[in-house]
Amino acid sequence: MPCLKINQNHFFHNYQILKNLVKNEDKIAIVLKDNAYGHGILEIATLAHQKSIKNAFVKNMQEALCIQHLFENISILYPQSCFLQTHFETCLKAPNIFFCVASLDFLKTLPNNTQIELKVNSGMNRNGISKQELQEAFNIITQKNLKLKGVFTHNGYGDDLGAEFFSQNLQFLLIKQEILQLTKSFNIPLPRFHSLSSSGAFKDNITHNPDDLLSDCFYRFGIAFYGYLCIDSVFNLKPNLKPIASLWAYKISTCSLLKGQTIGYSGTSKVLEDTQISTYDIGYGDGFFRIKEGMELKTKEGYKIYPRASMDCISIQSIQEEVCIFEDVSAFAKAFNTIPYEILVHLHSYIPKKII
Amino acid sequence: MPCLKINQNHFFHNYQILKNLVKNEDKIAIVLKDNAYGHGILEIATLAHQKSIKNAFVKNMQEALCIQHLFENISILYPQSCFLQTHFETCLKAPNIFFCVASLDFLKTLPNNTQIELKVNSGMNRNGISKQELQEAFNIITQKNLKLKGVFTHNGYGDDLGAEFFSQNLQFLLIKQEILQLTKSFNIPLPRFHSLSSSGAFKDNITHNPDDLLSDCFYRFGIAFYGYLCIDSVFNLKPNLKPIASLWAYKISTCSLLKGQTIGYSGTSKVLEDTQISTYDIGYGDGFFRIKEGMELKTKEGYKIYPRASMDCISIQSIQEEVCIFEDVSAFAKAFNTIPYEILVHLHSYIPKKII
Repeated sequence: MPCLKINQNHFFHNYQILKNLVKNEDKIAIVLKDNAYGHGILEIATLAHQKSIKNAFVKNMQEALCIQHLFENISILYPQSCFLQTHFETCLKAPNIFFCVASLDFLKTLPNNTQIELKVNSGMNRNGISKQELQEAFNIITQKNLKLKGVFTHNGYGDDLGAEFFSQNLQFLLIKQEILQLTKSFNIPLPRFHSLSSSGAFKDNITHNPDDLLSDCFYRFGIAFYGYLCIDSVFNLKPNLKPIASLWAYKISTCSLLKGQTIGYSGTSKVLEDTQISTYDIGYGDGFFRIKEGMELKTKEGYKIYPRASMDCISIQSIQEEVCIFEDVSAFAKAFNTIPYEILVHLHSYIPKKII
Repeated sequence: MPCLKINQNHFFHNYQILKNLVKNEDKIAIVLKDNAYGHGILEIATLAHQKSIKNAFVKNMQEALCIQHLFENISILYPQSCFLQTHFETCLKAPNIFFCVASLDFLKTLPNNTQIELKVNSGMNRNGISKQELQEAFNIITQKNLKLKGVFTHNGYGDDLGAEFFSQNLQFLLIKQEILQLTKSFNIPLPRFHSLSSSGAFKDNITHNPDDLLSDCFYRFGIAFYGYLCIDSVFNLKPNLKPIASLWAYKISTCSLLKGQTIGYSGTSKVLEDTQISTYDIGYGDGFFRIKEGMELKTKEGYKIYPRASMDCISIQSIQEEVCIFEDVSAFAKAFNTIPYEILVHLHSYIPKKII
């Protein structure tokens, strides 16, 4: 069985970098959705708890309940994706769990007194209530006595060069001003605000005034905690984050091959000398990406990986019992023309996690 | 929560095609490894049980135990990937569970009396014991009184044009002849043989003689059961298999956009007219592939999917509550330069399965 080793020192190192960046530890919230981007939600939540992080974001109710004991506030980003009534009822009753609401239709379905965060659209045009719908949202909130804990958006331009990042920040500021007016006229407490994730935080150069009611109260750090930042290179940001996960695989069998013999499906790879090749127990069936002809990938130790990968194993020029497939997934992300997030989050949850 | 709907009529239709192909239903074994290629192992095993399929292949012990009650024989292809001692002990005691053994090293670690199938290398040079190691394998089998239930290989050229497919078949025949001699000299019963999977079965034109001790006893059908065949088009095989899984997603929120407005991360997509776009609850965090700029993909209904996909949602030109992301995954496989297997098997197991 392959294993994802989680380096806790790297996690704490990344935490320190983020703390240095944002000055105040209360400005650090952690995004644990999608099984902590594939790293193991309970394992990462436990590390975050050791640093007294108070605010966490998860995908659905099951994830919220899994870490309910570890945070002051847990926001469920996609609470409509619930299919177990018991999960729904437990989350409703929990004092520290909030339901994020991205549409008026969903808002209308919520039971009275539900604790919510309103997701608003500040220009990404994906999920969220528009500025024009806020008045109606407040009508529903008041009618149902919903507890408005937060109003937030997602700035979809954190990674990019260009003015859109700032234009979205401005849009959100206008929305916050509207919210301030609405809370006054509906006589409900001002909610917390948040809008930026990892790359946004690194780009954000606004001096936040703690006395400013409309300041964001924290950054939602996801990928930076896991050791990556996918920001346009023109920003020349090198924050020295360290990837926290390394993927290890274990030997199944070893084959002695003569020069010219081929390996795997369709005999895609050919060995250039007499050698020993072993198979290791990670394949695309484990959610790892399928290594194909033309890809020149190596393990951390420098052992050559021979395409094509099979569903349950890959061939590597090694006879070691254990190999490290990656300790930084960037080379794999590049080979598959994607971002580190996708490689990590595809790994199936049954892969054991080991804190080292 | 997205949903994978499993069309049982398509499954039974595929079964009938395979039965017509191989003439004798006992020649049909089913490959259920990797959560039945992402389709839900218990759901697919239950359908297979309705057709009285006797032989199944799974990835690991956990999968074997999940379907233990449904088959006469269950072979664990990668039993060394076990990390729960209780699973190991339960599988050892089960009369209908066999451990596949791909190396002498693993063979030596097995407790006495274990029921095994020997995996041999017939030229794919991936997993398996070589012909030269068979004598030693039989020594160990005898010393430990292991129960040799089967000897098998995997022909890695089923999909391809060329002579290698036949050369591997010949290699396996030589191995079978060797096994016949060894069983005689060690005085143990002749095991069952198998070597071909879906595409191999469609290409196999050997008339199997039931009186021939060295005939393969069945084909291991995996992908064909799920409705696909990835064989070189030159064979012009059009067996009319029907994909059994369709992926459905559900609306999160709808956004009214004006001509020229952009959507999603980096504003990658732009709408060409005033329109309504909704987000749906499937993203790359669910193990679905990350749809990127340049990909022109549509739902089954013909609704345009707007890149880039997010971790938890995608934007689609639709206002329907439910959309069918695919009922045949081939277009997605092509867009991602891979095979249907990979798209299906990456889907996370928490996605509910619904038999329709």
